[in-house]
Amino acid sequence: MSGPSEAPADTAQTALAQVLAVLKARADSSLAELIEFASLPSISAQSQHAPDMQRAAEWLASRLRQAGLSTVELWPTAGHPAVYAEWLGAKGAPTILVYGHYDVQPPDPLERWKTPPFTPTVVGERIYGRGVSDDKAPLLLTVQVADAYLAATGRLPVNVKFLFEGEEEMGSAHLPALVAERAERLGADFVLSADGGMWSAETPSLTVSARGIAALEFTVRGPAKDLHSGRHGGSVHNPLHAIATLVASLHDERGQVAVDGFYDGVEERTPEQRHSTAQLPFSDEAYLIQTGAPSVYGEEGFGTLERQWHRPTLELNGLWGGYTGEGSKTVLPSEAHAKVTCRLVPGQDPARISALIEAHLQAHLPPGVTLEVRLSDHQARAYHLPPDHLGGQVARQVLAEVYGQAPLEVGMGGSIPVLETFLGTLGLHTVFFSFAVGDEDIHAPNEFFRIARLAQGQESWARYWWNLAESAAQQEPRA
Amino acid sequence: MSGPSEAPADTAQTALAQVLAVLKARADSSLAELIEFASLPSISAQSQHAPDMQRAAEWLASRLRQAGLSTVELWPTAGHPAVYAEWLGAKGAPTILVYGHYDVQPPDPLERWKTPPFTPTVVGERIYGRGVSDDKAPLLLTVQVADAYLAATGRLPVNVKFLFEGEEEMGSAHLPALVAERAERLGADFVLSADGGMWSAETPSLTVSARGIAALEFTVRGPAKDLHSGRHGGSVHNPLHAIATLVASLHDERGQVAVDGFYDGVEERTPEQRHSTAQLPFSDEAYLIQTGAPSVYGEEGFGTLERQWHRPTLELNGLWGGYTGEGSKTVLPSEAHAKVTCRLVPGQDPARISALIEAHLQAHLPPGVTLEVRLSDHQARAYHLPPDHLGGQVARQVLAEVYGQAPLEVGMGGSIPVLETFLGTLGLHTVFFSFAVGDEDIHAPNEFFRIARLAQGQESWARYWWNLAESAAQQEPRA
Repeated sequence: MSGPSEAPADTAQTALAQVLAVLKARADSSLAELIEFASLPSISAQSQHAPDMQRAAEWLASRLRQAGLSTVELWPTAGHPAVYAEWLGAKGAPTILVYGHYDVQPPDPLERWKTPPFTPTVVGERIYGRGVSDDKAPLLLTVQVADAYLAATGRLPVNVKFLFEGEEEMGSAHLPALVAERAERLGADFVLSADGGMWSAETPSLTVSARGIAALEFTVRGPAKDLHSGRHGGSVHNPLHAIATLVASLHDERGQVAVDGFYDGVEERTPEQRHSTAQLPFSDEAYLIQTGAPSVYGEEGFGTLERQWHRPTLELNGLWGGYTGEGSKTVLPSEAHAKVTCRLVPGQDPARISALIEAHLQAHLPPGVTLEVRLSDHQARAYHLPPDHLGGQVARQVLAEVYGQAPLEVGMGGSIPVLETFLGTLGLHTVFFSFAVGDEDIHAPNEFFRIARLAQGQESWARYWWNLAESAAQQEPRA
Repeated sequence: MSGPSEAPADTAQTALAQVLAVLKARADSSLAELIEFASLPSISAQSQHAPDMQRAAEWLASRLRQAGLSTVELWPTAGHPAVYAEWLGAKGAPTILVYGHYDVQPPDPLERWKTPPFTPTVVGERIYGRGVSDDKAPLLLTVQVADAYLAATGRLPVNVKFLFEGEEEMGSAHLPALVAERAERLGADFVLSADGGMWSAETPSLTVSARGIAALEFTVRGPAKDLHSGRHGGSVHNPLHAIATLVASLHDERGQVAVDGFYDGVEERTPEQRHSTAQLPFSDEAYLIQTGAPSVYGEEGFGTLERQWHRPTLELNGLWGGYTGEGSKTVLPSEAHAKVTCRLVPGQDPARISALIEAHLQAHLPPGVTLEVRLSDHQARAYHLPPDHLGGQVARQVLAEVYGQAPLEVGMGGSIPVLETFLGTLGLHTVFFSFAVGDEDIHAPNEFFRIARLAQGQESWARYWWNLAESAAQQEPRA
């Protein structure tokens, strides 16, 4: 067996066909493997799940070994381990670094799940479970493709390194140090990411931008202990009132972030870019049906997609204090808490944004309470893939082959902090090539993945490696 | 043995002395009984504790029977049962209705307790545990006094009915119906309440007013499900932002409640009344040390005690939504929640206040979200004891005897909804005669009771019944 750069086209096509045939024959076992993988509650943010994280890393390493990867290693970090594997036998062919994450979000609120979050359940054409869409199915299928290539042809068309981390859902805090430390091992032509997602199940899309992120938490403190709100109400400031005033001060009535300097340096999009976004098949009406929100809302003067992809935001992710249980408890609580994340666009620096928010909170702090702000290292700049990047061109080609139509070029509202790590530390751009879809309720109850996209993703990744080797050989013939 | 109205003064004094001697001899067993009673987690607001509520009611009934009360009954309600007992052998003497409650507040936040909340623990001169101050020690000592009278003299100096309810901490929802239904059995001259509290451990005080209460909860809803805050942030209104805006709108910058009509009808206090409050031995500095708050805060133009006792308030007791656990979860939650209680003063109607707040919330609702308001039946008007009430006069006399100084006349910031029930349904005024102290962290972690006040309370209640019989006999000789 031989790769496309070394063999006549018909033999080559036969080899790819054999790989695709193996994948097709393994459809049932591919799904069974996903169920096994997604049964592991690999919740990186909750310390009681540390043993499950270790178990998931070992499961993944074992699956990579079973695929026939020549090198499989667990790379320890100060937090959860990363799983690394490589196959480097395609002499002269490009090297790609496949990225994904095996950790998942916490499943709460548990009572809103219709099936247990860690008992992946097939219902019709979907599989439900925490992490199936983000990122276990999209990650696992890349391993299954490598397995199929090695089984059918004894080799891969390109050199492949896999780096699957365990801290994406908590901000990839220890990945920058790991990547810096292992930079030599991680050298590649670009990153092909199994994380991300397409924006619709009907139309293929290629994500060429992602918003950055800055995160912080803050606590407002009043009395040293919880007080009886009847006896003490009216004499000291209630931290719940104070935090509400602070949170309300973060936005103005036009939906803009009211933090001084927040929009400084934001790159305005050109009229052409705005027109292109406006042309995408998107309707507010359909979006409201999908989300169940009573109406769209946000910064005046921008469309919904522009606000999602290309405008920065400041969102509360959590707000709490006092009695939140059943019935009544007449308490004037000693503390109130808030968790905040901002989504950033090109021109915004995460550290500066965090500092501006801290300054705003200090400046707007009501009397009678104190403030503690904890800045998070969960931060990343916004990202853009250059239009002429080879990895992006191959992705367009493959998606057109598999789906019969050219992909839409879209932005991503979410953030992948590792984009900055890969670009800053390794000098590598990242091509998103995930087969998750944006409506699959990731980070929410009843997360699901469309089972058909497991096969579509496998075929696409198989073709991607094949076409990349061909394109690279045509661009610059190698030995 | 005979009561004071039927016997010469020296015999009578001897009888009271015998009762006091019995109580003194039983000091250790009195404390042991309190520990047993406070070990029962009788949390009325949490349905999983319904069996503990039943156990506590039965424990109390059994203790009343052991005391020798001729009639002891559990009175069922649509919620938790009330415990009723009576001794009516003091022909011609007044009849008092002793009120208290055997339910307690939820103990959370559990991690802030230094000793387990339901393992009552003696530390120095205090006993720590949920409910020891509110209201288990003050309630239990009234039963121990009846026991001592019956043991030492075979009778009580006055007719006594005990009514101990199990729903005070959840607003006494079913007590009005019970009192109305049992009105004939509950007939008395006035209510003597074991609930309430003195405002300082050093100086006796008599509470002559209590604020009323109105309660409600509200929920702000945005999308039908939790969304990823990266993907969706900026496109729909975040319910946490919306609820913060709503909560912030409830007060103005001068600390006043900003709800239209909230202060309508509030009775202004006279310059003499305000002067009297200002003369009480109270310092903001000491109060800040006690509570640990950075500064006092509230309605401009009023002192701290006035704001606590005589001005109405609107307090958030709970505010929550989104992710509140460890680490980060980038969620745009579908809902946010708030619990509110108002404290009311004479001139304010609870139902009207609730309606005004609901109208305010509807009028100030930000775009892109919906609102659900749930009014609570946890409500009561403010209360005042008439200055010339016999029950109040006896209380002043007894406190002066036991503590060697005349009691201060104080207000109560908290609310006892049953005051309105007793006045409205039975036509009875209520005299507060509790030996809890206002600094004992009720409704908060590490609630405690001063052990010495168990004996002081017992002596005071013993003298109260004795002196009441004497005073009544002097005012209007009976057969």
